[in-house]
Amino acid sequence: MRLAMIGLGRMGANIARRLMKHGHEIVAYDHSADAVQALSAEGAAAASSLQEAAALLSGPRIFWVMLPAGDPTEATIETLIGLGAPGDIVIDGGNSFFKDDIRRAKVCAEKGIHYVDVGTSGGVWGLDRGYCMMIGGDKETVERLDPIFDSLAPGYGNVPRTIGREGQDDRAERGYIHAGPAGAGHFVKMVHNGIEYGLMQAYAEGFDVLKGRMSERLPEEERFDIHLPDVAEVWRRGSVVSSWLLDLCAGALARDEALEQFSGRVADSGEGHWTVNAAMEEAVPVNVLSAALFARYRSRSDTTFGDKLLSAMRLGFGGHVEMPQ
Amino acid sequence: MRLAMIGLGRMGANIARRLMKHGHEIVAYDHSADAVQALSAEGAAAASSLQEAAALLSGPRIFWVMLPAGDPTEATIETLIGLGAPGDIVIDGGNSFFKDDIRRAKVCAEKGIHYVDVGTSGGVWGLDRGYCMMIGGDKETVERLDPIFDSLAPGYGNVPRTIGREGQDDRAERGYIHAGPAGAGHFVKMVHNGIEYGLMQAYAEGFDVLKGRMSERLPEEERFDIHLPDVAEVWRRGSVVSSWLLDLCAGALARDEALEQFSGRVADSGEGHWTVNAAMEEAVPVNVLSAALFARYRSRSDTTFGDKLLSAMRLGFGGHVEMPQ
Amino acid sequence: MRLAMIGLGRMGANIARRLMKHGHEIVAYDHSADAVQALSAEGAAAASSLQEAAALLSGPRIFWVMLPAGDPTEATIETLIGLGAPGDIVIDGGNSFFKDDIRRAKVCAEKGIHYVDVGTSGGVWGLDRGYCMMIGGDKETVERLDPIFDSLAPGYGNVPRTIGREGQDDRAERGYIHAGPAGAGHFVKMVHNGIEYGLMQAYAEGFDVLKGRMSERLPEEERFDIHLPDVAEVWRRGSVVSSWLLDLCAGALARDEALEQFSGRVADSGEGHWTVNAAMEEAVPVNVLSAALFARYRSRSDTTFGDKLLSAMRLGFGGHVEMPQ
Amino acid sequence: MRLAMIGLGRMGANIARRLMKHGHEIVAYDHSADAVQALSAEGAAAASSLQEAAALLSGPRIFWVMLPAGDPTEATIETLIGLGAPGDIVIDGGNSFFKDDIRRAKVCAEKGIHYVDVGTSGGVWGLDRGYCMMIGGDKETVERLDPIFDSLAPGYGNVPRTIGREGQDDRAERGYIHAGPAGAGHFVKMVHNGIEYGLMQAYAEGFDVLKGRMSERLPEEERFDIHLPDVAEVWRRGSVVSSWLLDLCAGALARDEALEQFSGRVADSGEGHWTVNAAMEEAVPVNVLSAALFARYRSRSDTTFGDKLLSAMRLGFGGHVEMPQ
Repeated sequence: MRLAMIGLGRMGANIARRLMKHGHEIVAYDHSADAVQALSAEGAAAASSLQEAAALLSGPRIFWVMLPAGDPTEATIETLIGLGAPGDIVIDGGNSFFKDDIRRAKVCAEKGIHYVDVGTSGGVWGLDRGYCMMIGGDKETVERLDPIFDSLAPGYGNVPRTIGREGQDDRAERGYIHAGPAGAGHFVKMVHNGIEYGLMQAYAEGFDVLKGRMSERLPEEERFDIHLPDVAEVWRRGSVVSSWLLDLCAGALARDEALEQFSGRVADSGEGHWTVNAAMEEAVPVNVLSAALFARYRSRSDTTFGDKLLSAMRLGFGGHVEMPQ
Repeated sequence: MRLAMIGLGRMGANIARRLMKHGHEIVAYDHSADAVQALSAEGAAAASSLQEAAALLSGPRIFWVMLPAGDPTEATIETLIGLGAPGDIVIDGGNSFFKDDIRRAKVCAEKGIHYVDVGTSGGVWGLDRGYCMMIGGDKETVERLDPIFDSLAPGYGNVPRTIGREGQDDRAERGYIHAGPAGAGHFVKMVHNGIEYGLMQAYAEGFDVLKGRMSERLPEEERFDIHLPDVAEVWRRGSVVSSWLLDLCAGALARDEALEQFSGRVADSGEGHWTVNAAMEEAVPVNVLSAALFARYRSRSDTTFGDKLLSAMRLGFGGHVEMPQ
Repeated sequence: MRLAMIGLGRMGANIARRLMKHGHEIVAYDHSADAVQALSAEGAAAASSLQEAAALLSGPRIFWVMLPAGDPTEATIETLIGLGAPGDIVIDGGNSFFKDDIRRAKVCAEKGIHYVDVGTSGGVWGLDRGYCMMIGGDKETVERLDPIFDSLAPGYGNVPRTIGREGQDDRAERGYIHAGPAGAGHFVKMVHNGIEYGLMQAYAEGFDVLKGRMSERLPEEERFDIHLPDVAEVWRRGSVVSSWLLDLCAGALARDEALEQFSGRVADSGEGHWTVNAAMEEAVPVNVLSAALFARYRSRSDTTFGDKLLSAMRLGFGGHVEMPQ
Repeated sequence: MRLAMIGLGRMGANIARRLMKHGHEIVAYDHSADAVQALSAEGAAAASSLQEAAALLSGPRIFWVMLPAGDPTEATIETLIGLGAPGDIVIDGGNSFFKDDIRRAKVCAEKGIHYVDVGTSGGVWGLDRGYCMMIGGDKETVERLDPIFDSLAPGYGNVPRTIGREGQDDRAERGYIHAGPAGAGHFVKMVHNGIEYGLMQAYAEGFDVLKGRMSERLPEEERFDIHLPDVAEVWRRGSVVSSWLLDLCAGALARDEALEQFSGRVADSGEGHWTVNAAMEEAVPVNVLSAALFARYRSRSDTTFGDKLLSAMRLGFGGHVEMPQ
């Protein structure tokens, strides 16, 4: 198929490359002329504006927007809706908030444009491994785009088949699903990331407990000096906690068991927050997902006002004077 | 009544003073001769050793041990058991772990000594306000000691009477209870402190949310510059969150709204830990009590290894490079 | 002063009563004619519509809206803005979301109407004890309304004065504050309720740990049969955890120590959710406030799908078959 | 090598089988004669008592105890210490608490017996996949037993090699580590299980949020009816949250997307509790690991007393009457 890739950052460029490798034609656009030039050198048609990108497509046109969520995506999609004609398809492949998708799909529908949201996981590894995709949109449009999704997805690969899926939709086994109407794709991807935060924090806490076994608070005979790179590595082999995230831990610890290059201040990208928010809308308790998110917030402060208030209360009722440690 | 006060720190000395003020006779002992001397000047009989303290009592003797939990209390009680005779009473008024009480009470019982554990709340305010006491031990002994507890307790005071308590044990309304057999007093006091941690952290988080409303992450029109001393003060008047801890917050914020004297590193004294542990023994979920405890642990670290591991995973799957903030 | 009270539910009617008791004049309106009639019998001027209420006021008119947050408040305020003239004042005394206040204040400002949001705490006790109020709006308007707030507030009462507040705004000590521009009043009230959830859950967990001490999981010598009404009562006297909420616990337990009238399914009214959301906007960790909220969600489910999924995983890796207990 | 397998339950019997398959000789003992008989039929030497098991070994004897943690393991190891001679090796392959190992190793050392603790992960899959093992004990003994561990471990398998481990201890890559002195093996395994609880709960909460998207609390346009079996399946392909636990989720959901066979009451086996306890000893915050544990506790109660107390307070301050839902 022929489609325009709008946004040629790490994700957009690699998605375009993987599509070209599978025989699709790419019209490439980015606000950076260099990024366009680079992809053009690999076989894409270069566009220097959204208008030109539109002009380089024909029939019902397909635009894949791969930009940072928020203003950049919003502005671009607005422009595309302005440029668009009935039958055109606008795909938001970024990390948009699912309620933005719901809203945009309505606006698109008024003009006969089809809106599709694709949550993609796979990060920097997707070019080779393929992208895991969660797709929202109307059934016909999603099916029309199937050749694209099929090319981007990892495929069956060497992942052992799940028993009992015979006769069910095999797209899931090839690495993509049609999750529901517009917004559903990003919703499932959002929850994916919420879970990701929880999984990561579970490992983080576990390794903290291992490392803490040398604490001087402990009786000497209960202290252990555990070699963390080996622990991460051994758990990859037949243990219940084996996972791709653990593979990454093992790799990082093998390179530097002290992880000295990292400051310990951890960013969050929005989906964790949105997941907790969605849970609250549904009245679903998510103590693990919220704790994982809050640990990141806390990691970015040296101290909190609340901590000082605790000390002030302690001084007030008990005459405790907190000492710096 | 006449009793020995063993340990004349802030708590022990004030308890002795309050007892003397109510007509009881105190034999005072502390490893610091100065502390003994100070109380002696106020009317106590001075003892320079546990043996001398014992000698200055007669009949069934009463020893009130008011020392830091752990080794100091343990060693002293062992010595007292050695010195003791059938009918003597050993009171542990400190913050001992309730299982230590259970164990010690058995050892005492073998020698005919009565063991009583008294959890006391009231801190530096107890001399004037009286002490809230939770008492464990056998019924007869606890009743024999009633004049002491009655003197130490706050009494009805000006606290509004609870409707519906007519005909019930009025000791609770005067500020002390017989909670159960040995260990039960410290157990109830331990849970009291566990709750205290939770209450304190609820205020701490709430004030953090108020303070955070000036965050530059927020749209300018959603920022508020809230005067925290006034908030703490106003909530003392007719609000649902009024409490003694809030009074302390209001006082601390009135003195210095930035709480600059405090480092933000908050100690914990064991009872929070023990409460979570007791909950786990009972399979009772305590997400609030544990979160309050863990916030203190976290306050004492600049960063955690786990946080670095999160960043390492993020780098691994997404090429994210965490920036110091 | 003369003002219209719109909404004569439990809160609105009592606020009107307290104002009349202090010499203010009330125009009373509610969609229930009975409610209007009742208040009219106590001296209010009866209005059978918002229009009539407006007509019964003069000069710059004051409307106090005391309705459920959401649609009822929204619709009423829209109507009042339509009826209003420059200089009029619309007060939202309910539990509105602070961002709704910010939005409405802008709309009001375009018509020269002053918008004031008043978060009130005090519940069913306010008529007698007075209401604790957190107020948002422009300075002049809030000051113009001072006689109203002064009458509604508890006043100094017999609450011990906080040391160090000399020379500071004494409204806080009389029970109300001007928290900031429109929205700030409800924001502070929202955080108040968020804290309230945390405090309540701290007590709930603590009493669960006390009650759990009879668990058959425990060795017999470590079980205690603790009388909870006495514990709640004694903690009211000189303990660190004394509070108004604890007073309520003591009262409830004195009436029925098994709390049999309650199902254990606990509602939440929105502010807890909003507080966690505000915290996430600010990147402030609130593990206690969120855990308190989630405990209520969980209380309303018999089981969760997630729990079943845990059992399914356990069966998968360990052959564990979960038994109903 | 020749060793006695004490305890022929699911784990013990399969470990024995895997060892025999790799050429080791097994002396089989269990209190169930049938279990002994079954393994004897597969080539093991049958023992009808611990004494006979000991007699069927020679030279420095090796006993692998594979029994439920707590009393069964404790009693058996005591007997073996009584039977043992200097140079003998006692291996506890169960899920013992690491402090029990530390204590037992001391007792063994007094008799010249070597104590080794082996935490094993792999569950019902270990016979085929091999067992992931975390080993505590003195260096020489652990090395002497290497042929056994090498046979039991999964080996390199088809797990991609971690870059940067060249020249490091390759046992981790083959599926076992020497974690440290006695106790260290079970300590690492305990933390493994603590992490496992966290990972499981992260998935559980995420799937609850997905399922909750059909909640009637939500505006209709924000509801999605997401097919959970497909979500679990697609995440196995190239997503960040892929893991063995997710494979199990996908399998369970493929069999029955409603998971109707499960009651939703989830057991915990002790290690989660111990991990939180170890973290508290070290003052390490573990909000995710504790929340995962507490979710299981909560799953086993219909309601809590604390929840009723919340309702009682709500009634007290607001006149709220909780309704069953």
